[in-house]
Amino acid sequence: MEREGILVVISGFAGAGKGTIVKGLMEKYEDYALSVSMTTRAPRPGETEGISYFFVDKEKFEQTIAEGGLIEYANYCGNYYGTPKAYVEAQLRAGKDVILEIEIQGAMQIKRMYPTALLLFITPPDADTLRRRLVGRGTETMEVINKRMARAVNEAEGIEEYDYIIVNDTIERAIADTRAVIGAAHARPFRNGRLIQGLREELRLMSIQHRND
Amino acid sequence: MEREGILVVISGFAGAGKGTIVKGLMEKYEDYALSVSMTTRAPRPGETEGISYFFVDKEKFEQTIAEGGLIEYANYCGNYYGTPKAYVEAQLRAGKDVILEIEIQGAMQIKRMYPTALLLFITPPDADTLRRRLVGRGTETMEVINKRMARAVNEAEGIEEYDYIIVNDTIERAIADTRAVIGAAHARPFRNGRLIQGLREELRLMSIQHRND
Repeated sequence: MEREGILVVISGFAGAGKGTIVKGLMEKYEDYALSVSMTTRAPRPGETEGISYFFVDKEKFEQTIAEGGLIEYANYCGNYYGTPKAYVEAQLRAGKDVILEIEIQGAMQIKRMYPTALLLFITPPDADTLRRRLVGRGTETMEVINKRMARAVNEAEGIEEYDYIIVNDTIERAIADTRAVIGAAHARPFRNGRLIQGLREELRLMSIQHRND
Repeated sequence: MEREGILVVISGFAGAGKGTIVKGLMEKYEDYALSVSMTTRAPRPGETEGISYFFVDKEKFEQTIAEGGLIEYANYCGNYYGTPKAYVEAQLRAGKDVILEIEIQGAMQIKRMYPTALLLFITPPDADTLRRRLVGRGTETMEVINKRMARAVNEAEGIEEYDYIIVNDTIERAIADTRAVIGAAHARPFRNGRLIQGLREELRLMSIQHRND
């Protein structure tokens, strides 16, 4: 298969299970490459350079922006976060579907620069489940949880900008649905130009050859 | 699941295996309903009224057209063929994905009347395989085979009008791919309006309730 990879953007509410779905896809299948973000924030304990993030200073980050080396970036709480272009494009050329886990603003930047990118929005089946998952993590204060729920209200306004909505009810099902949606995207005619052109040429040649059978 | 069904149009070259794929889907799964066409052509041995076709006379067919009772129709070799609307719409409301196996002209009529219909084009992996399958059937004269190949040249020009192209290399794989593509279509945001509106309302209510936690 010399098919080209698809740039897959995964967004969704905090607590929707994006990370778990992405981890599941990466562990179970070899079709995917996970994009590693570049950031100016300091590494946290346990984070590894080149796996968790590429950790750089502000000067290096702004130089990369200036060189057009990022396909999207944003500034949160005084720190830059962005997606390096070189790795993404190399993996796409190698036929890997490249997965980016980013927020809606970044997703919209990607869509403008890569109109054929596939945008997926992950949601729990209902708001109660979302809140329970956030509370269940036990790692956040009530204040943070309520902030995230408030942000979810805004994020929910953007769902129609996405190509697909994946309901994360059970994780195995959500992983399978995500894989099916990415697989289906490979069957769009505009991603199969070579196949279609090849068929047309063969059919034309063959109908000339057999004209007098 | 109170989801609405999808109108699925299946087209493709004669010999591409459309019928086998549709038969496979119907036998393996209960999610689908197969539309039965209405025709003015005479029944052939083994064909059953209401299963193979609804067999009617010309007057009845033209009356059905006049009443808006067909979602597409065409005239081939002096006989009418068309798709009755009532059955299709009842099945869609019942949540079934309704499968129509029709040619490109009919497919384009459907797309105009039902913009959310899903159009699939079935193709063998290459033109040689197509020809071999047509010859292998052993039921057609060389003249008919060459006519079909010539028609395939024209049909191939319309592939980009379809939403998905399914390569029928092995039949099991083609059935699975067709099912995956239909399944993915259910995850489009515009088909999940109720889910999305529900989420938005719940999130809004919840963020008001917990405002002072």
